[in-house]
Amino acid sequence: MSNDYRKMWEDLGLDLPAHDSLLETLGKGYKEIYMNQKGRPEGMEYFDFVIREVHGLRIRELLDEKSAGKKVIGAFCVFVPEEIVRATDATLVGLCTGAEFATEEVEKLLPRNTCALIKSAFGFKLGKVCPFIESADMIVGENTCDGKKKAYEILKDIVSDLYVMDMPQMKSNKGRELLSNEYWRFKEVMENLTGVNIDAKRLKKGIQIVNNKRRAMHRLYALRKAEPVPISGLDALLINQICFYDDPVRFSNSVNRICDEIEKRIEKKDGVFHEGTPRILISGCPMAIPNWKLPWIIETSGAVIVGEESCVGERGTRNLVDDTGVTVEELMDAIVERYFQIDCAIFTPNTERLNHIIDMYETYDADGVIHYSLQFCQPYLIESMTIEKALEEKNIPTLRIETDYSMEDIGQLRTRIEAFIEQIK
Amino acid sequence: MSNDYRKMWEDLGLDLPAHDSLLETLGKGYKEIYMNQKGRPEGMEYFDFVIREVHGLRIRELLDEKSAGKKVIGAFCVFVPEEIVRATDATLVGLCTGAEFATEEVEKLLPRNTCALIKSAFGFKLGKVCPFIESADMIVGENTCDGKKKAYEILKDIVSDLYVMDMPQMKSNKGRELLSNEYWRFKEVMENLTGVNIDAKRLKKGIQIVNNKRRAMHRLYALRKAEPVPISGLDALLINQICFYDDPVRFSNSVNRICDEIEKRIEKKDGVFHEGTPRILISGCPMAIPNWKLPWIIETSGAVIVGEESCVGERGTRNLVDDTGVTVEELMDAIVERYFQIDCAIFTPNTERLNHIIDMYETYDADGVIHYSLQFCQPYLIESMTIEKALEEKNIPTLRIETDYSMEDIGQLRTRIEAFIEQIK
Repeated sequence: MSNDYRKMWEDLGLDLPAHDSLLETLGKGYKEIYMNQKGRPEGMEYFDFVIREVHGLRIRELLDEKSAGKKVIGAFCVFVPEEIVRATDATLVGLCTGAEFATEEVEKLLPRNTCALIKSAFGFKLGKVCPFIESADMIVGENTCDGKKKAYEILKDIVSDLYVMDMPQMKSNKGRELLSNEYWRFKEVMENLTGVNIDAKRLKKGIQIVNNKRRAMHRLYALRKAEPVPISGLDALLINQICFYDDPVRFSNSVNRICDEIEKRIEKKDGVFHEGTPRILISGCPMAIPNWKLPWIIETSGAVIVGEESCVGERGTRNLVDDTGVTVEELMDAIVERYFQIDCAIFTPNTERLNHIIDMYETYDADGVIHYSLQFCQPYLIESMTIEKALEEKNIPTLRIETDYSMEDIGQLRTRIEAFIEQIK
Repeated sequence: MSNDYRKMWEDLGLDLPAHDSLLETLGKGYKEIYMNQKGRPEGMEYFDFVIREVHGLRIRELLDEKSAGKKVIGAFCVFVPEEIVRATDATLVGLCTGAEFATEEVEKLLPRNTCALIKSAFGFKLGKVCPFIESADMIVGENTCDGKKKAYEILKDIVSDLYVMDMPQMKSNKGRELLSNEYWRFKEVMENLTGVNIDAKRLKKGIQIVNNKRRAMHRLYALRKAEPVPISGLDALLINQICFYDDPVRFSNSVNRICDEIEKRIEKKDGVFHEGTPRILISGCPMAIPNWKLPWIIETSGAVIVGEESCVGERGTRNLVDDTGVTVEELMDAIVERYFQIDCAIFTPNTERLNHIIDMYETYDADGVIHYSLQFCQPYLIESMTIEKALEEKNIPTLRIETDYSMEDIGQLRTRIEAFIEQIK
């Protein structure tokens, strides 16, 4: 990133030396993990560029939008309806982070036994290295897991304008009503923040922008069914991650462009891994930038990832919002309908998720499932026990991994993953 | 316990050798911890008897009730409204347990990083050593924490008749509506199970029985304000624990009887600890039988416990249900009103709890607060960080303890607790 951004970072209140050191580490990791891949689609250049400029040009864009009177909303979860944000011309950005930072400071505020994702978000804030959180006009939390629900009570004192959205725990009528009520409340909050009245036309436009982004991702996912695989799991994960940060229209165009290229590759049977490479479905907790540890180990151990059953993956992007409604009520209801289908482990029971995993396993012609849980993430950890059992009953090879953001377990993980890949070959 | 019960335990499907060994361990622990106390009120004899017969006579009573066509309901949480159970002449018993059992078997079903209370309940079931769970006609789970919510999905396959009650996460109008809806649903389930139609008369009677139990506990709590302290924290905890198992009417009478005795002791300034003994308020996670570790360490380290801000304590028993309503609707609403005030850490925000801790600290003239969290109990662990900070800002000495049911940390806990008591003397 160019030095032109130093003034901007300083104005945002970043700790420049700490931020420099973070960028250096990330840059190194990215080079080692991403740039060492062979035969990547040319279209990845755009996403490489976005990553290079993720704290630079993208932040400049957000600040330009703010200067033009628009708002930036930060969020930690795929349950925050981007359609409503877009309907006010505001921009939604993801605040989940995938690296340890300022851990000592974090553990003064949160128990050591808190999941890495929550600790990381706190660390980036406390360490003053996240230009996204510093650019946000409002941060939206949600009562998904106990960890986040209770951590927001602490976060509210270290960020300004934290808004918390309640969440249901069961897919009952009352659960749906609660979600609907919260989305209407959020709509009002967005209207008050932006001064924009969300009418049907605006809401429909918001829905269409976000649906187009999802459609582009669906197209990309479908192409990964090909054999040999035309794009690495690491690259696909990167696109899934950038989905949370980039301008949605530009992003959709870029995904469609790389899909055009990939289609041609498929015609020529031009894969990034040779034919017959064991195909892995990843399932479980979200992987935020720069959490590339597990996919990197998998794809340097002789296998390729063909799908992500994850918030940063299909759980986050599947299903469109029906945009045929004509009133605000109809469109809002369509939004609720789409989000209420998300098969997150916070719901009980959550059997839809198991069905989706099996469905993805079959659709992507996978050879095995690696279930990824963040340590101390109770919903996914406990659910993984049931899922492992159910998959094994269906003779689907399954490996259950529990890890965090540290690099200490790389050797151990590699040993387990190599053994698993050997077994499914 | 007499051998007469062996046939009964066998019929319930208990593993007799394992159960014998459990009873032996518990008996030994009870003798060491409870019977070694000096100058206990005579009224404790009744509660000692109940403990001796907790797997014997009490189970015989429950089975006799079942033979007479009544039902036994097991529950894991103070949010299950006993009033509604009582209104059908059924009996509610607590299923939380406070000792490790069959841990190896449990960890095949649940992640190692699950709180001791959940693991223990699973262990007692898997190890076939809990006559309460085996006697229950229905077990009621509730979506309080992530751990329990997700564990019930697994428990449902190892017990018969698990019924899960949804729970709100915020004290909003929608949250109250959800709780109300769930209590009405529970009423219907109880009616179907028992064949009893819950009319206003029955509901009012249920409310009065449970209120009387609470009133007796409130009376006991109030007497602990005296100096010197007329009853140990261990004994008070035992009464709080037995509150979940005993026949409510007999229990209330026994508590009132010991209160009569304690009142006389107070007049004579006859304490169980000498005047000036540092007074501790315990706050945090529930302590189920036989989880006496922390209170035992505290009361053998030169301090006395004067109050429990806990589900097994005031959080569980404070506030009565208004019984003045005349219709089922009015009485049901009064039940919802009372339970919706419970300041459990599953709610966000939960500032009422902090206020209650401060209030108890002052009311019981405590010298310090020991916050007790079960390891991996995220709601209480995270909340304890805020509470510690807030109490220290008020110059209330606070010690934050995180532990489980193992005995391995006794030495370390004793060192920390002795140092804390030294500091507040």
